[in-house]
Amino acid sequence: MTEASQHNETDELVRSDDPLHPANHISDLCRRFHTLGWVTGTGGGVSIRHGDHIYLAPSGVQKEMMQPTDMFVMDYETKEYLRRPKVLKPSACTPLFLAAYTHRNAGCCIHTHSQWAVLITLICESGLQKPSERNVFSIKEIEQIKGISRGGSGSDEVAEGGRKLGNLGYHDTMMIPIIENTAHEEDLKDTLQKAIEEWPETCAVLVKRHGVYVWGKDVAQAKTQAESLDYLFQLAVEMHKLGLKWVS
Amino acid sequence: MTEASQHNETDELVRSDDPLHPANHISDLCRRFHTLGWVTGTGGGVSIRHGDHIYLAPSGVQKEMMQPTDMFVMDYETKEYLRRPKVLKPSACTPLFLAAYTHRNAGCCIHTHSQWAVLITLICESGLQKPSERNVFSIKEIEQIKGISRGGSGSDEVAEGGRKLGNLGYHDTMMIPIIENTAHEEDLKDTLQKAIEEWPETCAVLVKRHGVYVWGKDVAQAKTQAESLDYLFQLAVEMHKLGLKWVS
Amino acid sequence: MTEASQHNETDELVRSDDPLHPANHISDLCRRFHTLGWVTGTGGGVSIRHGDHIYLAPSGVQKEMMQPTDMFVMDYETKEYLRRPKVLKPSACTPLFLAAYTHRNAGCCIHTHSQWAVLITLICESGLQKPSERNVFSIKEIEQIKGISRGGSGSDEVAEGGRKLGNLGYHDTMMIPIIENTAHEEDLKDTLQKAIEEWPETCAVLVKRHGVYVWGKDVAQAKTQAESLDYLFQLAVEMHKLGLKWVS
Amino acid sequence: MTEASQHNETDELVRSDDPLHPANHISDLCRRFHTLGWVTGTGGGVSIRHGDHIYLAPSGVQKEMMQPTDMFVMDYETKEYLRRPKVLKPSACTPLFLAAYTHRNAGCCIHTHSQWAVLITLICESGLQKPSERNVFSIKEIEQIKGISRGGSGSDEVAEGGRKLGNLGYHDTMMIPIIENTAHEEDLKDTLQKAIEEWPETCAVLVKRHGVYVWGKDVAQAKTQAESLDYLFQLAVEMHKLGLKWVS
Repeated sequence: MTEASQHNETDELVRSDDPLHPANHISDLCRRFHTLGWVTGTGGGVSIRHGDHIYLAPSGVQKEMMQPTDMFVMDYETKEYLRRPKVLKPSACTPLFLAAYTHRNAGCCIHTHSQWAVLITLICESGLQKPSERNVFSIKEIEQIKGISRGGSGSDEVAEGGRKLGNLGYHDTMMIPIIENTAHEEDLKDTLQKAIEEWPETCAVLVKRHGVYVWGKDVAQAKTQAESLDYLFQLAVEMHKLGLKWVS
Repeated sequence: MTEASQHNETDELVRSDDPLHPANHISDLCRRFHTLGWVTGTGGGVSIRHGDHIYLAPSGVQKEMMQPTDMFVMDYETKEYLRRPKVLKPSACTPLFLAAYTHRNAGCCIHTHSQWAVLITLICESGLQKPSERNVFSIKEIEQIKGISRGGSGSDEVAEGGRKLGNLGYHDTMMIPIIENTAHEEDLKDTLQKAIEEWPETCAVLVKRHGVYVWGKDVAQAKTQAESLDYLFQLAVEMHKLGLKWVS
Repeated sequence: MTEASQHNETDELVRSDDPLHPANHISDLCRRFHTLGWVTGTGGGVSIRHGDHIYLAPSGVQKEMMQPTDMFVMDYETKEYLRRPKVLKPSACTPLFLAAYTHRNAGCCIHTHSQWAVLITLICESGLQKPSERNVFSIKEIEQIKGISRGGSGSDEVAEGGRKLGNLGYHDTMMIPIIENTAHEEDLKDTLQKAIEEWPETCAVLVKRHGVYVWGKDVAQAKTQAESLDYLFQLAVEMHKLGLKWVS
Repeated sequence: MTEASQHNETDELVRSDDPLHPANHISDLCRRFHTLGWVTGTGGGVSIRHGDHIYLAPSGVQKEMMQPTDMFVMDYETKEYLRRPKVLKPSACTPLFLAAYTHRNAGCCIHTHSQWAVLITLICESGLQKPSERNVFSIKEIEQIKGISRGGSGSDEVAEGGRKLGNLGYHDTMMIPIIENTAHEEDLKDTLQKAIEEWPETCAVLVKRHGVYVWGKDVAQAKTQAESLDYLFQLAVEMHKLGLKWVS
């Protein structure tokens, strides 16, 4: 097989007229998230699982200029790249996104550097909150909490081993674990995986002084949960400034 | 009648080239409101009354992606759905919007999760304000108050049973009642209706830790009042941070 | 002359393919200013002087939906309307804009309800600043001050009766007078005119709990001055929150 | 040579269908930066080095309306203008941009009046920070720091005289020097050049009460570094408000 034909072959993985094809969808989401300040200065990342294929935005590219042909595509079973743009580097988030796909059966993962997420981890770390609150962000009785699903995948209110599913209720306490940051992003893999296992109801993990990882069963759920969480982080920072408690 | 023809019939209710047709107008407003942070993560809602037809944005849909064909249409007299998209759920706001249509003869209702609205209810609740101020947000002598109509529908300065109509004046005190939130949005119906009756001059009701319901005689009035209120909520939060009184 | 032909005649005043024609330019500016939160909920206004014609955005219209055919056109000499859309009301700002045209030879006036302008007047009013500072906003040694011209019209550094012209320098103190608000906007005319006369170097007048009027010799100068002032108002509010002095 | 043909010749320097041609690219960046509040009211500036040609946005033009034909073009060797639009003035930033081209081999320079940059210089100046911190902004252990390169040009981790290159790591302290502002922007040249020499690892210089100069080896690096810095300035202001230390 010639190199040219091979190139054409992997291009088929990312070329589509359908705006909801993962390669187009990720490019579109990156543009929107850049406007929100979630992926400033090449930070952050987005990934979609499409059957056995995992689509991943590359590292170091200006997110608002992302093109479908910039995408990496990985085989979910073998974890081998089916497509790997030569001039680009794979995202350091890749092992973290894989943790959500493997342990939560997620269909989409979003990683933001939102300042609200970072500020929440700084407030919790600062000891202005009780020690027990330093490794988890908790808030309750805010309507927007109802936009968050238990476990971050699946939204049907079906019992499973006695555990409640579906979205959180208004009187539930939303708890998002906070893990320590590491010098190299890929080294977050173990603690992130541990947090996912220890917090079966969470749909997200905050990383101290870094940002947040959010997932969902599909793009719509991952994106709306990322929006709802960012809303809650921002509101909580403002509440903190005004001397109002997150859990009364 | 075949199912296909029935489908075509109800589609006539939502298909139009006129950008101001309720189905198009709601879609457009939802996109704008998403940019403002009013309908983050599928939160919030919009409804327009068009003669005997009430148009309602569905539940759980990403508001900035709303399509005219996503709309529910209800008959005002019978309160029966004339159009009910199969894969979507009707909005839990529906009974609340109906209260404004029935009791205030509104032509449009907007429900936002604006953080400024939520923060106002939190500041009032916190007791930083006087007890008598906890169930009502009051502010006066800010020019933007003149953008708010008495009762939220009709803007002609006509006396009706001795009551002043038209918009609030600069020296009037704008008072927006605050009701308790409930676990399920539809359960707000009774208290919202009570607030509408007890506060004949209000064009809006704040819901604690949740957001605000605003109405007007038509889309223009509901939308500009929602904007003016959000401006006043934001300004009042900033005033509170700076130690400035809302009513001196 | 038939009514139809009269209609066509006055339409000539507002129909043009040139995006910089005053009727198109005002519509475009209103859309931009709405995004900035300067003309929320039908508040604020814009006017351009074009030779002997004064173009004025109407009252009560949603600013981001303004159309060229919504414009009022007044003859500068006679102060009579040459064009008066039947279903619209002239802006209550009209006499205030005329003051800047008459007393400063302005070419464009902008009135915003920017929250930063309102907060500056509230901070000055609150007595947190010295009594002598309550009726004027003063700030110095911020680079953006260099975007503000003396008198708000003309930018050539020519002496006129010994008075310096041109833009303010970095070490100059920018002073913007603050006048009391009135119940009816048109009643601001006398105090605004007095402030214009008493402060020959100002290109703007702040109105307490209301907003700001800014002018310039043309649209570019009025708009860039409105931007620079809003930047300075916002910065000054943030400085105040951080305990930093506006004039050290 | 006729004036007309000369005009055509210099137009060749700025006319291109390629959106990444420097004249088009600067216009596009100015529009984006205006939305971010970086170049409000004709403030700020952008320059790109393209081989031996330096492209410079003019002075005093509304940045969001910049056209390719507004560009000045200078020969890098002779420092003479190859193109100089008659009705426009060259930017006062020109000697400052040249300092980064000459001393850092930069390919693009960005100057913003971002309020976050100004507030950082005001907080450092105010003495709320330690005296030793007044002429430098330092922050560490925030993930976004990894978006900043040592020296602001080149990103390969190659040793050069023993000095580390490449981007900063999470545990590195990012230090941005702060220089005094001057009455005339061109007079910043000497202190800016001195700061560039004294701080070999910096990719930016803050100017007190004025803004920031940022550079990079190409547009992508200069722009993403400007974004990352602005993110860090904003976060640091919020941290300061919350009583959180920038370096613990």
